[in-house]
Amino acid sequence: MERPAALDLSQDAATLTARLVDIPSVSGTEEPLADAVEEALAALPWLRVDRYGNNVVARTRAGRSERVVLAGHLDTVPVADNLPSRLDADGVLWGCGTCDMKSGVAVQLRIAATVPEPNRDLTFVFYDNEEVEATRNGLGHLAAHRPDWLAGDFAVLLEPSDGQVEGGCQGTVRMRLRMKGARAHSARAWMGENAIHAAAPVLERLAGYRPRRPVIDGLEYREGLNAVRIEGGVAGNVIPDACVVTVNYRYAPDRDQDAAVAHVHEVFEGCRVEEFTVEDHSPGALPGLAHPAARAFVAAVGGEPRPKFGWTDVSRFHALGVPAVNYGPGDPNLAHKRDERVEAAAVVRCEERLRAWLTAPTGT
Amino acid sequence: MERPAALDLSQDAATLTARLVDIPSVSGTEEPLADAVEEALAALPWLRVDRYGNNVVARTRAGRSERVVLAGHLDTVPVADNLPSRLDADGVLWGCGTCDMKSGVAVQLRIAATVPEPNRDLTFVFYDNEEVEATRNGLGHLAAHRPDWLAGDFAVLLEPSDGQVEGGCQGTVRMRLRMKGARAHSARAWMGENAIHAAAPVLERLAGYRPRRPVIDGLEYREGLNAVRIEGGVAGNVIPDACVVTVNYRYAPDRDQDAAVAHVHEVFEGCRVEEFTVEDHSPGALPGLAHPAARAFVAAVGGEPRPKFGWTDVSRFHALGVPAVNYGPGDPNLAHKRDERVEAAAVVRCEERLRAWLTAPTGT
Repeated sequence: MERPAALDLSQDAATLTARLVDIPSVSGTEEPLADAVEEALAALPWLRVDRYGNNVVARTRAGRSERVVLAGHLDTVPVADNLPSRLDADGVLWGCGTCDMKSGVAVQLRIAATVPEPNRDLTFVFYDNEEVEATRNGLGHLAAHRPDWLAGDFAVLLEPSDGQVEGGCQGTVRMRLRMKGARAHSARAWMGENAIHAAAPVLERLAGYRPRRPVIDGLEYREGLNAVRIEGGVAGNVIPDACVVTVNYRYAPDRDQDAAVAHVHEVFEGCRVEEFTVEDHSPGALPGLAHPAARAFVAAVGGEPRPKFGWTDVSRFHALGVPAVNYGPGDPNLAHKRDERVEAAAVVRCEERLRAWLTAPTGT
Repeated sequence: MERPAALDLSQDAATLTARLVDIPSVSGTEEPLADAVEEALAALPWLRVDRYGNNVVARTRAGRSERVVLAGHLDTVPVADNLPSRLDADGVLWGCGTCDMKSGVAVQLRIAATVPEPNRDLTFVFYDNEEVEATRNGLGHLAAHRPDWLAGDFAVLLEPSDGQVEGGCQGTVRMRLRMKGARAHSARAWMGENAIHAAAPVLERLAGYRPRRPVIDGLEYREGLNAVRIEGGVAGNVIPDACVVTVNYRYAPDRDQDAAVAHVHEVFEGCRVEEFTVEDHSPGALPGLAHPAARAFVAAVGGEPRPKFGWTDVSRFHALGVPAVNYGPGDPNLAHKRDERVEAAAVVRCEERLRAWLTAPTGT
């Protein structure tokens, strides 16, 4: 691939978004974009720039009492015949990655370039492979191998959130519940024990389950406990000796991983589940909106913070002890769509609000 | 394959069984055995012999007021390193087909050869492809294309039944019950409708189902209604929009096919099943033990008739209006096993009892 022209960080965030979108960076092919980002940041004398793989981290060292992390991923889902970008007459920018999340990355770069003396020290994180399996996630690699680069008092992920603050995220655990039985010919069912029938109380509990809606830091979360798969059966004339129900418990961030697993066991107590197996598990993240930096952030950007029901990378910051929220331009429902787009004005608005927050005089 | 030596029908049924076993006849390869059977029967002047494919039918034409059909299949399951046959010191004959059912076929041939003047007209049916899919079954082909060859007042299938009369057989219907839902991300379950949860009442009904045990012609049948398969699920983070439970209803022969399907609908009334589909259906067969020929048969062979819970070919005779039972030497639990075997004495005993029944003076 031809080396892309250098990024011009004096352009506004919307124009810069178009430039970033036109450097394709489907997961696994982020190198040219990471190069361009690194090169542009290296020109800013108030930043120290580090790189790990295709992950770029830039930090101010102004000696402030607080440090804020602004993070975003460089990759996109596969291009769907929607490149290069196109700005229409209504000021809407179309193309793969406009919304998720090169507009957010453009805002990060603009803050980096235009706030040489922030009121809080700043860390800018640009990472790869967010749109693919968790083991490849660049933020995860940084957390594992360069955790000190991610240190901070508060983090903002610039994922599309329609310009609203989304606090924390729910945890998610998937567990397999195995029912046992005994095979027999179905013409002589009384000689066996039907494992599918044994799942009846499990499905009853699920059907009658009343999820919690706890309020944390002023945000109302909505839990859920659902069967996402059921499998049982040997042959058309055999009483089945096994049936497995896979449940997904989405839980509010006031519960930790152990409490979540314990809750699932509790729900199905007495159901004669032979075996519980955790298939995968990602913890939630508290919104951390009580933190002074977070409070100032919410006050500066405005709006009513919302809870995030789905799991997001804010959880990785939470695991490092850094409260984190999502806040970025773009409608999250347009992410991954062929008609992905973002309003240019929304990108600029986000840039301005973040700059206002990071340049205002800080109280005690 | 070398043409097998002619069958000698003057040998006793156990010796003849060994001869038949040593002419391999795995389903689809019955021709040499059918040839040998046809040739042996053609030498008996009191029989008219007909052939359709590898199905051989021989009939007396003595002008009796009743006609009895003695039927057996020529094929076996695949040989499992258990040929040629071997008679051990305890008088047990080992080998593929000894039990299921060349001992029964030997009894048929012995009756054909030794009862030139039976008290009831006799029809001997030897058919192919019983051990494979129903569409290949030779008795089914005869019923479809030569039904007059199968006409009679009563039929005995010489399938292994441990020398006990097994009357009629239960019907079996397999039906798919489909539950509907609406997909949603499992982090926002309230936006969807879980089709697996919707199956809870179906499994409850199954778990609490009390099967009938009707007594018909003195035999107690045992019905059963069981889930034999359950499937649902889209992905680990999706509320599933469909769940299918496949049930198998085994029903006593006092119910016909329509009544069986109606019963399944009835059981799940109010369960919000979106769709019922019949996957396959084989009707039962009444034992017909009230028929004079059957009564005389049971009296002659002795023992206590038992119901047959599994589906068998007696149902094909029932469909032609011919009451039928299973009665033959050999333990049915040894069928299809590598260590398949039959007691020589049991084969001879079966031969003697049938001969006694078919040669005794008949009352009015």
